[in-house]
Amino acid sequence: MTIPLRRGPHQTGPVPDPRPLPAPSIPASGQEEIRRQNLSALLRHLHVYGPTSRTELSGLLNLNRSTIGALAADLVAADLATEEAPTTGRRAGRPSLVVSPRSERVWVRVATIESERLCVARVGLGGLIMDQREAPRPPGATPLDTVTELAALMGQAERDLGPDTVCAGGTVAVATTIHELDGTIHVTGADERIAAALDAALDVGAAKRPGFVTTDLAAAAVLAEHIRGVAVGMDDVVYLHGDRGISAGIITGGRLVTGRGGRSGQVGHMVVHPDGRQCGCGARGCWETEVGVAALLRAAGVPAGTRPRAVLRAAARGDAVARAALNAVAGWLGLGVANLVNLFNPDIVVFGGTLRELYTASATHIRRRVDSAALPASREHLQLRAGALGPDAALIGAAELAFENLLTDPLNARVPD
Amino acid sequence: MTIPLRRGPHQTGPVPDPRPLPAPSIPASGQEEIRRQNLSALLRHLHVYGPTSRTELSGLLNLNRSTIGALAADLVAADLATEEAPTTGRRAGRPSLVVSPRSERVWVRVATIESERLCVARVGLGGLIMDQREAPRPPGATPLDTVTELAALMGQAERDLGPDTVCAGGTVAVATTIHELDGTIHVTGADERIAAALDAALDVGAAKRPGFVTTDLAAAAVLAEHIRGVAVGMDDVVYLHGDRGISAGIITGGRLVTGRGGRSGQVGHMVVHPDGRQCGCGARGCWETEVGVAALLRAAGVPAGTRPRAVLRAAARGDAVARAALNAVAGWLGLGVANLVNLFNPDIVVFGGTLRELYTASATHIRRRVDSAALPASREHLQLRAGALGPDAALIGAAELAFENLLTDPLNARVPD
Repeated sequence: MTIPLRRGPHQTGPVPDPRPLPAPSIPASGQEEIRRQNLSALLRHLHVYGPTSRTELSGLLNLNRSTIGALAADLVAADLATEEAPTTGRRAGRPSLVVSPRSERVWVRVATIESERLCVARVGLGGLIMDQREAPRPPGATPLDTVTELAALMGQAERDLGPDTVCAGGTVAVATTIHELDGTIHVTGADERIAAALDAALDVGAAKRPGFVTTDLAAAAVLAEHIRGVAVGMDDVVYLHGDRGISAGIITGGRLVTGRGGRSGQVGHMVVHPDGRQCGCGARGCWETEVGVAALLRAAGVPAGTRPRAVLRAAARGDAVARAALNAVAGWLGLGVANLVNLFNPDIVVFGGTLRELYTASATHIRRRVDSAALPASREHLQLRAGALGPDAALIGAAELAFENLLTDPLNARVPD
Repeated sequence: MTIPLRRGPHQTGPVPDPRPLPAPSIPASGQEEIRRQNLSALLRHLHVYGPTSRTELSGLLNLNRSTIGALAADLVAADLATEEAPTTGRRAGRPSLVVSPRSERVWVRVATIESERLCVARVGLGGLIMDQREAPRPPGATPLDTVTELAALMGQAERDLGPDTVCAGGTVAVATTIHELDGTIHVTGADERIAAALDAALDVGAAKRPGFVTTDLAAAAVLAEHIRGVAVGMDDVVYLHGDRGISAGIITGGRLVTGRGGRSGQVGHMVVHPDGRQCGCGARGCWETEVGVAALLRAAGVPAGTRPRAVLRAAARGDAVARAALNAVAGWLGLGVANLVNLFNPDIVVFGGTLRELYTASATHIRRRVDSAALPASREHLQLRAGALGPDAALIGAAELAFENLLTDPLNARVPD
């Protein structure tokens, strides 16, 4: 018998922070703080949802019309937003002005360092990718080695910018696994030295512009899917990023899991098959030895280096060997997902990177395995979905982090040294 | 090459909350809100750290002496604290008054429902267990079936209380696994109906006293170890509670992980051995089939029903079969811990319940297995420890949750219907 449940009161509200100290900070001025909070809420709304009329903003932010008017005027004066009459007024009377984020003027720099690819983009306020460039990652190059190339790509992306645009920050999202040429794997955290090296290469400090931060690629991607993708409105999200291996970006209770040193989410090295293959990390039977690209190619009997898409296509055409290989990998994928479901009781598991196509090709098979191995209580209401933002998820999520200072305090965003 | 890392800036500060809405609430009165926050910080300090002089409080809470004096007077007037001169003044001059929580007067009701035992306690402000009683859990009784017995035990515990004492709330912490008589296992969340039934049995509503909440046993235990035990000051904690199976209470970034429906932490049903034994949950090779009490007894070749302590003692005496059984179970325990370390990158893994003795008996063996299977980056700085609070951890953690309303707003604690 499974008992149907409601959430307990202490689970629906904010979880009590068990830390008793430090004492609350006393704001220097209550009115100033309230204005900052309201400006933040308004700009954040424009950033996430795009142009919105003053009337709608008044209802959504629960502030009266004159307050919204004053706040919007502040954002316009700071060149963060524009206001204009809607092009088609449906009702009689004076139409409500529409407030829009200035995506062309205010932007952030983002970059991703994946195992085989480098990407950079300029992302405008509002989350629009304004310019995107990529290059192959040189074999054997550590993430830090790629900084010169990233800086060059960024320079190209910014060549034709007008002088009145503003860079509000930067984030570099890095796959935290390093594959040595001898096959061994080292997993690290997001190395802050990459951000520092980008600052230096782009002379950010000299220009007094906000500097870079480094983050984990899967962490950036889960933020993006949470704010703009398939996981909007969900507080408990597991995002699986497939590259050569598998890592995860995890949100619980609406907050990103980072771990003590920013090194959480190494799901690819969860041991699920102790009698299985040796993993490059030194352990045996890691999840990614059964689910990674190499496992799929091996099961399909095709040479290493073949594009995994070729196997998926062969399976779709009815090739029995490819289909069996795909089913075997899908079964292992479902097993590991079940483990994560039992641990995190998420609303949704999102498949990204190389796992996106694998999930799409085997959704039924994967779901069946999850249902057989995860507890009914843990998978109640569970959704499995391919990521909505595709290969851009990490870039878009990196931009969310880069905009955070501006969105928190629109008129006085902290500029790091 | 493993790259040494600092935490990234976005990882040291609070994680940006990705939810753009709702808009911030505007406090009715800034001064009132500041007073509430300061009273909360002061009472929380007394609750966690015990009697403290005004001088120390002034430094710890970063408030001037006269503010501390006024706040302490408020707490004294509300019968939540006392003030008195220290018994031994070491320095000349007027000694600083010592502020103490009124543990005898202000208390909460807590209960735990474990697989074989029911416990109730009255816990005073300050976290002191004032009265504790227990009874065996009747075989086959669901958690909800045990409410009458819990209420009776609570009635006994409160029989001799003076009329001027105040119950500030109640929490029942429940092991979320139900073992059917046929061996099948159902895992649920913390059933709010248990709290409601306790409210009814103790006539809490009629007395306008704060009602019960239900929580998960391992979640309560990890809070206790975090606030008062081995995990003080650590923001990333995995607490493993061994009973018949294994569940976990997990804190990441200083916040409890609950999952969508309060059903996270089912680590015992993480599949680590797909070719292994059938688990009562329906899956095969769950972690607890290799690590639970039954696994230890089976490996040692002793009858089910034997106390596991007997095996640990035999191993300590040098019995080769018992030692081999213990090592086998310790190896599997370490393997699952390594998986959790790779997922959560915690500061510490705490062993509680039946795992406490198992860990103590095999700490070296377990550590070795963790080191061989967890990524170096994920286990850097990792501590493994037996819980400091022993079998009382869940009771003490339940009390923390029950006191939360009072500690958040000492003079106007919300009283649920």
